[in-house]
Amino acid sequence: MQPVRRLAVIGVGLIGGSCALALKRAGMVERVVGIGRGSVNLQRAMALGVVDEVSTDVARGVDGADVVLVTTPVGQMGSIFDALRGAVAPDAVITDGGSTKRDVVAAARERLVERLPRFVPAHPIAGAERSGADAARPDLFVQRHVVLTPLPDTAPDAEARVRALWTACGAKVSSLTPEQHDGVFAAVSHLPHALAYALVQMVAERPDAGMLFSFAAGGFRDFTRIASSSPEMWRDICLANRDALLADLDAYDAMLARLRMLLDRADGEGLERLFTSARDARDAWLRSMETPQ
Amino acid sequence: MQPVRRLAVIGVGLIGGSCALALKRAGMVERVVGIGRGSVNLQRAMALGVVDEVSTDVARGVDGADVVLVTTPVGQMGSIFDALRGAVAPDAVITDGGSTKRDVVAAARERLVERLPRFVPAHPIAGAERSGADAARPDLFVQRHVVLTPLPDTAPDAEARVRALWTACGAKVSSLTPEQHDGVFAAVSHLPHALAYALVQMVAERPDAGMLFSFAAGGFRDFTRIASSSPEMWRDICLANRDALLADLDAYDAMLARLRMLLDRADGEGLERLFTSARDARDAWLRSMETPQ
Repeated sequence: MQPVRRLAVIGVGLIGGSCALALKRAGMVERVVGIGRGSVNLQRAMALGVVDEVSTDVARGVDGADVVLVTTPVGQMGSIFDALRGAVAPDAVITDGGSTKRDVVAAARERLVERLPRFVPAHPIAGAERSGADAARPDLFVQRHVVLTPLPDTAPDAEARVRALWTACGAKVSSLTPEQHDGVFAAVSHLPHALAYALVQMVAERPDAGMLFSFAAGGFRDFTRIASSSPEMWRDICLANRDALLADLDAYDAMLARLRMLLDRADGEGLERLFTSARDARDAWLRSMETPQ
Repeated sequence: MQPVRRLAVIGVGLIGGSCALALKRAGMVERVVGIGRGSVNLQRAMALGVVDEVSTDVARGVDGADVVLVTTPVGQMGSIFDALRGAVAPDAVITDGGSTKRDVVAAARERLVERLPRFVPAHPIAGAERSGADAARPDLFVQRHVVLTPLPDTAPDAEARVRALWTACGAKVSSLTPEQHDGVFAAVSHLPHALAYALVQMVAERPDAGMLFSFAAGGFRDFTRIASSSPEMWRDICLANRDALLADLDAYDAMLARLRMLLDRADGEGLERLFTSARDARDAWLRSMETPQ
């Protein structure tokens, strides 16, 4: 696999910065240009060795790049695709790190147009509450999933190149359709984020919130960890995956109604059965993750 | 503060076993007798040095004890109080480690009768998924909350003794009424447990559960950690605190409905406001926990 001569990373945060560091460590990239709106973060990325040069202009920054990685919030990708269309080399590979895929694919189809075959939609699964170039680390993707959602239009060589790059970062790469992807992550990622934000907000709005928080312990802390995530990023994700998330909110509400009914009837046997089933499913999942694949 | 001459621990698991180890380390107990139904766990507790002798009979085990700690699931405490009433020395202090307090207090009032002034209801906040004597460790309560819910009947010297014992374990001891206690922990502990069980169960029941679990990552793992807790214990807790938990399930459902409405309207500004408010509340809470008190 040939190394990247010039990698343009648009949005040098946790995902883009960590990918740059991982590819550098793997000897898979010669030069990285960091592109962003905030020059403070870009200078920080330079100082940390995450990127080798910087630009606040997309068109100038991607000039001469053979691979372009877009890791901005998904809400900004449309205008970035506009800027890329006329600026990237015709054979350059474009990929992204967005947490939702149908909206990114729709934006790419509309904005990249004749460049669409060079675009490989991707979602590296390595969220964290921290953001910015300071959060980047070369081992972020080791043993993590990266999901590609290639289109019928996607050029096989472009897809192979993106797959090889993420593999070089240590990731486990798999493929889903954009629809499958958004359905999966609505349930296992977007819904839990919404539920965690909702619990913290419910507690925070109570008149006795101070007392409640003062006795909240480790269970509450872990359950709500994802409620410390970026509100802007999660607003965009929720809006982008709105229909799937609405359906899962309804499915969750139905499960809560079932649990509530068991509780209302003081049906201890039914509650224990539900809790046991959930506990066993979770423990089986944990074991499956420990098993080398 | 005088050390305990003979501590009887009924239910030698994470809480009771850790308390025994912590008091031993602090030089606050001379001899510990472990009482339980399962002789395998009791022998394990002996082998680990958690207890010095064992008994499978409550009345015989508590003979000569000056402090009795009941750390069984709350559903078993009524019958244990029955056995204690005629068996403990008149001046022995009885305390418990139950996660709900109104039900334990009601059982104590009904079953301990003339011994009630020697009973100090308590809740050490140090849950974990692991159970049994093997889970016990002497530092479990360091910097953790222990909430006492003394009654108007409780003898001040009994309360002072229990307070001193938990302080010797390294805990931060405070007092609430049983009603305050159950209201607080419905919101910050029992509700999150119910929500986590519900999410895992919802995912597990989907036809594509295998695919969903295979892409679930760190956010899902932390959010659902408490769904690996003991189903039997959490059945008892939910039933014991049923009214408070039902009210909080309804409050949570109302918050989810608000979030759902914002999403349904694609109200990005409203979603971001809710997420930001929750994020800020959680971050303020984390900072307050870091501040030495």
